[in-house]
Amino acid sequence: MSDRLTLPLADLHGSLADPLLDAMTFLNEVTERYPDALSFAPGRPHEGFFETDSVAEYLEVYLDHLRERGLTEAQVRTALFQYGPTKGIIGDLIARTLANDEGLTVDPASVVVTVGAQEGMLLVLRALCAGPQDVLLVSSPCYVGVTGAARLLDIATVPVPEGDPAALAATARRLRAEGRRPRALYVVPDFANPSGTSMPVEARAELLEVAAAEGLLVIEDNPYGFFAREPGERPTLKALDHRQQVVYLGSFAKTCFPGARLGYLIADQVVRAPDGSTTLLADQLAKLKSMTTVNTPALSQAVIGGLLIAHDFRLREANAPATAYYAANLTTLLTELERHFPAAERERLGVGWNEPEGGYFTVLTVPFTADTAAMERCAAKYGVLWTPMADFYPDGGGEHRLRLSISALTADQITDGVARLADFVRAEAG
Amino acid sequence: MSDRLTLPLADLHGSLADPLLDAMTFLNEVTERYPDALSFAPGRPHEGFFETDSVAEYLEVYLDHLRERGLTEAQVRTALFQYGPTKGIIGDLIARTLANDEGLTVDPASVVVTVGAQEGMLLVLRALCAGPQDVLLVSSPCYVGVTGAARLLDIATVPVPEGDPAALAATARRLRAEGRRPRALYVVPDFANPSGTSMPVEARAELLEVAAAEGLLVIEDNPYGFFAREPGERPTLKALDHRQQVVYLGSFAKTCFPGARLGYLIADQVVRAPDGSTTLLADQLAKLKSMTTVNTPALSQAVIGGLLIAHDFRLREANAPATAYYAANLTTLLTELERHFPAAERERLGVGWNEPEGGYFTVLTVPFTADTAAMERCAAKYGVLWTPMADFYPDGGGEHRLRLSISALTADQITDGVARLADFVRAEAG
Repeated sequence: MSDRLTLPLADLHGSLADPLLDAMTFLNEVTERYPDALSFAPGRPHEGFFETDSVAEYLEVYLDHLRERGLTEAQVRTALFQYGPTKGIIGDLIARTLANDEGLTVDPASVVVTVGAQEGMLLVLRALCAGPQDVLLVSSPCYVGVTGAARLLDIATVPVPEGDPAALAATARRLRAEGRRPRALYVVPDFANPSGTSMPVEARAELLEVAAAEGLLVIEDNPYGFFAREPGERPTLKALDHRQQVVYLGSFAKTCFPGARLGYLIADQVVRAPDGSTTLLADQLAKLKSMTTVNTPALSQAVIGGLLIAHDFRLREANAPATAYYAANLTTLLTELERHFPAAERERLGVGWNEPEGGYFTVLTVPFTADTAAMERCAAKYGVLWTPMADFYPDGGGEHRLRLSISALTADQITDGVARLADFVRAEAG
Repeated sequence: MSDRLTLPLADLHGSLADPLLDAMTFLNEVTERYPDALSFAPGRPHEGFFETDSVAEYLEVYLDHLRERGLTEAQVRTALFQYGPTKGIIGDLIARTLANDEGLTVDPASVVVTVGAQEGMLLVLRALCAGPQDVLLVSSPCYVGVTGAARLLDIATVPVPEGDPAALAATARRLRAEGRRPRALYVVPDFANPSGTSMPVEARAELLEVAAAEGLLVIEDNPYGFFAREPGERPTLKALDHRQQVVYLGSFAKTCFPGARLGYLIADQVVRAPDGSTTLLADQLAKLKSMTTVNTPALSQAVIGGLLIAHDFRLREANAPATAYYAANLTTLLTELERHFPAAERERLGVGWNEPEGGYFTVLTVPFTADTAAMERCAAKYGVLWTPMADFYPDGGGEHRLRLSISALTADQITDGVARLADFVRAEAG
């Protein structure tokens, strides 16, 4: 047995030694240890609208769609069972849906169907960052998926405060002065994970101007855009994009279901080769995808494709019950926070929170360090779980903040959970 | 319009400028331009055994399996629709199948379910190669998927002649003398793509000894192992692995179907952290997977899981008709080559081929340059497609070789195709 190979962790890739990964693992462990705790932690969608039988139905809808388009049974079989085009087989259906839901006119040729938005991030980061001087700017606090993808690819990330175009310009200039090349800004303009905040319309236009002036692409990630508390949609950055400077990352995890692991990207940028010939950035990203997953599972594409067809390419309408559910939950959370921490009490304790206009997440500020140890105390004694915010700040910060998600709880659970959380906060503050 | 952003290809990641990608794109284009040509090019499985209705059936088998294991309907719904464990949900079913089919005793905890074997390659390469001094050894000629993954990650690859343990040792020592760190050897021991060759049992044992002596892991990729012309299986490297030095990459693309994009890896190596604690390499690879695709689609896992259950965890038996089909096709190919190029004629022309014992691929050597231009001439005038071999040699070579795949043709098409190919070879040689 002594000649068994043992691998020192230190000899493996540096991203594996990242403390964030250990924090995430620890959070999962704590969650498993307190299965009965009310959990404000997970960013996963509510399950009440999922119906097991619908999978086979949507699959059949998609296969019938192929038959109606004139495919023979043999061709239908090929589409479902074989390797498929690297860009995917439902780019046209996605484009129709985006036209209805986002007012976006998208050439299906610029769509790449991906294994979740996560693979899209990996592909875009890999294409744009060619060498050690290349830098990805990320809004801070930042979704851990994109910083994770950057670490896996050894790409440096530099945080920029969320929603601060002036800071963006200053950071880009500073980096260039240092001989580095800022390539793109990653941003979630609608109901961001983890902050819950949204970018006002004017700020969107200003961001695009600044990015254009600084030669930055904007990577817009939009998993939560449908879930507003009140009507009053803002255009996506992609809808405002007149210079083809926005690469859009879409996800069906929250608007359809996560088990399909289906996302997509829109990359309509023109890429010019040394010989003067041009392609779409989508085609270049598809080449990279042939080295990550070859193509997105036809099974997942067929089921989601069928779902899009069955809902007449209108996911906003299809998601009206989910939107109402999340909106009511968010209202409950904010109302209960207000009830347990009236203004005077709030000030006395040093407690506060933001008031997101939609989505899953709200940030609570507390007068103590909201780390994993505090989270575990809260789980053990008060039966409530939440997510420390510090892990979302690439350059530090957020130590007194915690993220509350309302997506996986009922209104009653939220009411109960906030009461317990208030007890915990008072105990820790006292 | 003049302020539209244009991206110079030269500013994007170097892997996009790789000539191999252009060659692959060109091959696809030629294939599309000659849709009626008989094609020995694609490595995709025969479609005759696929049945569209089976997908919903296998899905139901898997869901029933969950119910029989005691899951409530709500838990079944969660398993199918939600995010799932990064390692996957059918590692136990895969382990049972490997016990029956390969005589492998596998702890399900060491299995990571991946989006095709391609994602498995990416994860293993990323984990093992931490810096610029780290090198991946690849057997040459080599499957393009692994060299592609290495380029995407900026990992240097060094070719080693296929089936030459002495050369492997010499190369590893030379690299170490240069201050580089050879980390692993990628190899397809059974019916390799593209060469079709298999490693004799003694060579397998010797390879493991040499790799152990040189401190190399072995990455064994085994998509074709089931498809032998004659009974007489050889153990996988993993079955011979007593030192936990083999990481095994499995694929369901050929034994089930490609449209699920389902693969897996077995990584039972012990990883030791600086504090002395240990984990399995599989756990480390799962952390990386959280940055590439988060988890493998539950849909794909459920359908393939149901297929495994429905076939009593015996894919070899389930694949008996496919194995017989490919074996008959390979026999037809070799017989027809022999008929069109009798020994004397072969010698006169400078034509030859290997005689693989199974799988999809045979290599034909010809007395002219078998490049994409020749391939296009062959398609245009003789209606036959094939794959130039030169692209599979990382350091050059194979210019007079072409790969013939028998998987996507019928025996009659192969007979007809070899006749046309023989005419082409004679015309080019003359």
